[in-house]
Amino acid sequence: MSTVTFFTPVQEEMQQVEELMRTQADEHHPELRAALHHLLGAGGKRIRPTLGLLVGNMLGADPRKLITLAAAVELLHTATLVHDDLIDGALLRRGNPTLNARWSPATTVLTGDFIFARAAKLAAETNCLPLMRLFAETLAIIVSGELTQLFTSHGIASRENYDQRIFAKTASLFEMSARAAAMISPVDEATVAAMQDFGYQLGMAFQIVDDILDFNGEQAEVGKPVGSDLLQGLITLPTLHYIEDYPDDPDVQALLEGNTDANRDMRLRLVQSIRKSDAISRSLNEAEKYVAEALRALADMPAGTERQALEDLTRYIVDRRV
Amino acid sequence: MSTVTFFTPVQEEMQQVEELMRTQADEHHPELRAALHHLLGAGGKRIRPTLGLLVGNMLGADPRKLITLAAAVELLHTATLVHDDLIDGALLRRGNPTLNARWSPATTVLTGDFIFARAAKLAAETNCLPLMRLFAETLAIIVSGELTQLFTSHGIASRENYDQRIFAKTASLFEMSARAAAMISPVDEATVAAMQDFGYQLGMAFQIVDDILDFNGEQAEVGKPVGSDLLQGLITLPTLHYIEDYPDDPDVQALLEGNTDANRDMRLRLVQSIRKSDAISRSLNEAEKYVAEALRALADMPAGTERQALEDLTRYIVDRRV
Repeated sequence: MSTVTFFTPVQEEMQQVEELMRTQADEHHPELRAALHHLLGAGGKRIRPTLGLLVGNMLGADPRKLITLAAAVELLHTATLVHDDLIDGALLRRGNPTLNARWSPATTVLTGDFIFARAAKLAAETNCLPLMRLFAETLAIIVSGELTQLFTSHGIASRENYDQRIFAKTASLFEMSARAAAMISPVDEATVAAMQDFGYQLGMAFQIVDDILDFNGEQAEVGKPVGSDLLQGLITLPTLHYIEDYPDDPDVQALLEGNTDANRDMRLRLVQSIRKSDAISRSLNEAEKYVAEALRALADMPAGTERQALEDLTRYIVDRRV
Repeated sequence: MSTVTFFTPVQEEMQQVEELMRTQADEHHPELRAALHHLLGAGGKRIRPTLGLLVGNMLGADPRKLITLAAAVELLHTATLVHDDLIDGALLRRGNPTLNARWSPATTVLTGDFIFARAAKLAAETNCLPLMRLFAETLAIIVSGELTQLFTSHGIASRENYDQRIFAKTASLFEMSARAAAMISPVDEATVAAMQDFGYQLGMAFQIVDDILDFNGEQAEVGKPVGSDLLQGLITLPTLHYIEDYPDDPDVQALLEGNTDANRDMRLRLVQSIRKSDAISRSLNEAEKYVAEALRALADMPAGTERQALEDLTRYIVDRRV
């Protein structure tokens, strides 16, 4: 797919989401306001709020609540990125300086906290208690996933570990966004469950494709060195497939010996081996399975512009190049 | 008052609060569980949940919800302390190693986030939407207050700045604890407002007394050097009163010139001048005014064990030595 069309049906509402997010620090210190504006101005595709808006519009949610929810979801995402970038010492995100590149660790930690607080406040304003619980649970899942990754070695070569990690990191918030939009819509439990499943499948596919792009994207597009995950010792799906297919590769054996600090040459070689192998296409096949499941979850939804846009969004997940 | 008796009526419920807090990481990584247990095991007077339990019991709240609320309040407090200690680089709190003294900044940031998430989840479990909004707003107030303090000079010698700061730092959470306990009780809006006011007055008194103890406590009791706030350039109520009374003191003038990094000798001298002046007793008078207001807010509440305990708690605030 060459043109991204799925944003169109929610373009106007997304403007309101942006506006609502930008005003969240209005009563507070000008520096805090500037930080929030800097973060929101740095872009990002807004996939998560788009997902929520499309699902909610498809199911007849109250537009006001839906916009509030979408802003809550994107701010929750933003807050986790602020703390992640601080933790990773990342100086750029999407080509823009991160908050921690310009500010002290203290203000960065607290700005993340503030954005969490405002996300929670917006979530509470949807007047939906189960949504509030879901919001808190999702935050706990995301953070606990990151902690588990820090506590355990980066180099765990287990599919179960990978699946849990990408659920916590990405699919949980996709799931929340779609599920919460259904929760505030006049629909039955089965529809809520279908949208939860849809968000989950979409999120899993999204992260697998991200992990593939880390190997086969060009540095200029992805914004970081090719194979940067593996270079940092993080084992993702393409590496798992390669390990399965070439257990006797000496570089694989070195990696499996748990020596993730092993020499950079070994890991650079491994990145090239993986790029040339069919570990990439095998991973893409898996992403496509999630996509097929996501499309299946959509099949019983009301036909129309929104369902069409959600289908386009779903296909975009695997077709995108960046 | 020599014996602290106000904990007695809620002793059993507090055990359940402790238990509920301790189990919040049970489904998560053992290291995270250990961190939570370390934090909770490090003590703390549990004034905030005690306040909530006493107010709720006095007003007939459902015990299950009340215990959940009390755990949410104390975990929110705990999470803010985790991030504060990281930011301040504090290595000890209440004589115990802080999390950041033992762990990396990354795990400390995320553990704080996790505890925020679990506090929010518990708050949501009270099934009270206005309480959820209050919870999110209180977190925003606390964090925004800290950010304002970081962005502006520590050395602002203004009463308005001081009042705002101690509200954000302390009174907002006392207020929330008392108000939220009333919100989940079968009482009218006027009673909720009275308990909000009670919590506010109590919190303001509590922080003023803390700021006094920083000057006239003994280092062994307070756990930090006498006058440590002023030594770090933080202007609290006793200093404000001293400035008002002795504007011509050369040390005051040096301080007001905004040179908070001025030599340590000047500030050590100022600490001694303040200790000897009646800035301390003037500050204590102000704390007592807040206490009188707090007691007034209690006057219309149902008489009994809990009201008595809340009165004792209120008086303890100004009478405590540590």
